[in-house]
Amino acid sequence: MFQGKQSWMFNSKPVIISSATAVGPFEGKGPLSNDFDIINEDIWLGQDSFEKAEKVLLEQACSKAIEKSNLKKEDISFFLSGDLMNQIITSSFAARTLSIPYLGVFGACSSAMEGLAVAAQLVDSSNANYVLAGAASHNASVEKQFRYPTEYGGQKPPTAQWTVTGAGAALIAKTGNGPKVTGATIGKVVDMGLTDPFNMGSAMAPAAVDTIEAHFRDFKRDINYYDLVITGDLGAVGHRIAGDLLIDHEIKIPEEKFADCGLLIYSEEQPIIAGASGCGCCATVTYGHLLKKISNREFNKILVIATGALLSPLSYQQKESIPCIAHAVAIEN
Amino acid sequence: MFQGKQSWMFNSKPVIISSATAVGPFEGKGPLSNDFDIINEDIWLGQDSFEKAEKVLLEQACSKAIEKSNLKKEDISFFLSGDLMNQIITSSFAARTLSIPYLGVFGACSSAMEGLAVAAQLVDSSNANYVLAGAASHNASVEKQFRYPTEYGGQKPPTAQWTVTGAGAALIAKTGNGPKVTGATIGKVVDMGLTDPFNMGSAMAPAAVDTIEAHFRDFKRDINYYDLVITGDLGAVGHRIAGDLLIDHEIKIPEEKFADCGLLIYSEEQPIIAGASGCGCCATVTYGHLLKKISNREFNKILVIATGALLSPLSYQQKESIPCIAHAVAIEN
Repeated sequence: MFQGKQSWMFNSKPVIISSATAVGPFEGKGPLSNDFDIINEDIWLGQDSFEKAEKVLLEQACSKAIEKSNLKKEDISFFLSGDLMNQIITSSFAARTLSIPYLGVFGACSSAMEGLAVAAQLVDSSNANYVLAGAASHNASVEKQFRYPTEYGGQKPPTAQWTVTGAGAALIAKTGNGPKVTGATIGKVVDMGLTDPFNMGSAMAPAAVDTIEAHFRDFKRDINYYDLVITGDLGAVGHRIAGDLLIDHEIKIPEEKFADCGLLIYSEEQPIIAGASGCGCCATVTYGHLLKKISNREFNKILVIATGALLSPLSYQQKESIPCIAHAVAIEN
Repeated sequence: MFQGKQSWMFNSKPVIISSATAVGPFEGKGPLSNDFDIINEDIWLGQDSFEKAEKVLLEQACSKAIEKSNLKKEDISFFLSGDLMNQIITSSFAARTLSIPYLGVFGACSSAMEGLAVAAQLVDSSNANYVLAGAASHNASVEKQFRYPTEYGGQKPPTAQWTVTGAGAALIAKTGNGPKVTGATIGKVVDMGLTDPFNMGSAMAPAAVDTIEAHFRDFKRDINYYDLVITGDLGAVGHRIAGDLLIDHEIKIPEEKFADCGLLIYSEEQPIIAGASGCGCCATVTYGHLLKKISNREFNKILVIATGALLSPLSYQQKESIPCIAHAVAIEN
């Protein structure tokens, strides 16, 4: 069977039989609002902390995805999820609610595609019938943990990105109707020495390019195979750098085929500076927006490269640079 | 093929072709000191922070495991690792050093067996040739993050456990010499409402029992199949509770076949209160001590159930209870 150096080809073509997204009010005012299943009007989601609100977002997305599939949660073999909270409490506490055997994953904002890749791999290898993959972030919980509480009103530089309040979940099965997960490429850690947590896009861009290059090499493909190659949350700054790096690496991707989830979810009127970020960014854009575009045949083959900055506030305080990673998943009709 | 409700049977019997452990000075004074590859005399490992010391421990274990296998790191398909630091920086920064495609996993102290289970699954399904699975913890970094800095000298209750300064790594391959990974059971989150981070063993015991029960059910086995059933880090208090719960659930495991890694690594003279804990506990005891006992045929079939408390300091501050999980891996000659 196929075994690329750092890639998996899923010959049985596992199906995304359902997916769901839940977002906050700010995301509900953006251009993709029609693509989301649940738009919460209350940024607290009725909870007394932003961390608990983030957990409810993930539970909403997971419950909705299960509901759409007409399965019971007892039918689902495994739940794979990750988030940005310390000790991924969002995912673990949602796993407590769901009561499905649980594998916690962590790749920072790349967690959505890490989960989807491993979920598809489990189904493809007949080690699971149904796997639920999720990821979530909440603007206020993430800003508070990684930078400053939003109430503090700190000024941000033009390279800063806006953490998405949102969660996405996808349910993968051996057979059924829906877009198919056909392959995945697992990233290496790439660290170019950047240290600024207000400039994640620049730090993550080389990791995205490294994984795109590995994917094309392992699958012996080029851009002609795909209708769209879309990164997770590089934002405006990182997207431009990734474009330049691709040219340096002699990988040709025409501008109209190269996009970033972090540049799609908000409108230009929304004050998000350099674009969106967070685990919920790639998760909601992929599971809400992109899967719809595949279902209606606007795209037939896409490659989603979720990017993650693997720092912690503590590693930053200890003057470490920011290790980054990107995991790519191919989704096709 | 076999597919238990929450278990995988590895028909190709992936082999642990090498493993290695690195520990701190305190562990080097314990009864298992001859089982560890590297005993560091300096708790700082020459670093200027305990977090960096923890990362070096993991790098030591990984490098040693690769060295023993006579492979080059370029031969290894994937590195799976987890730890207790926020955003698992120990694992991610070690992944930067190793430069092997990396899947971050998180199951708190169950991370070692989560990584080993998924690693064996990847090799068994022919989705990888060689996979390195690791886990680490450091007493001072973990105590500082979850409880108090050790320099503070806070008093601890008799239920408290001692976080192991140690890392373990195992290299899994399709063929070769060594103990075989024959199956795994992935746990559900179990939360009995306990809230005391100084009493993790009691919180985790029900999760361990839940996974043992699921394992025996999925594989249609009982204790007669195994020479030893060993939990990760329940300590004295949790071990006793687990024993009582097994009786309640009518699962018979004779006392001499039921052990806990957290009760093996230190001697009674060492002031560790209720036993050992931390990702490094199950990792060093399994990859150092237990694999040697399998190699010299003292045991032929063991089941290792790594237990994890999925709390964060923040979830504790928000008065949440402690969700727990346990993942079991069967290792056989």
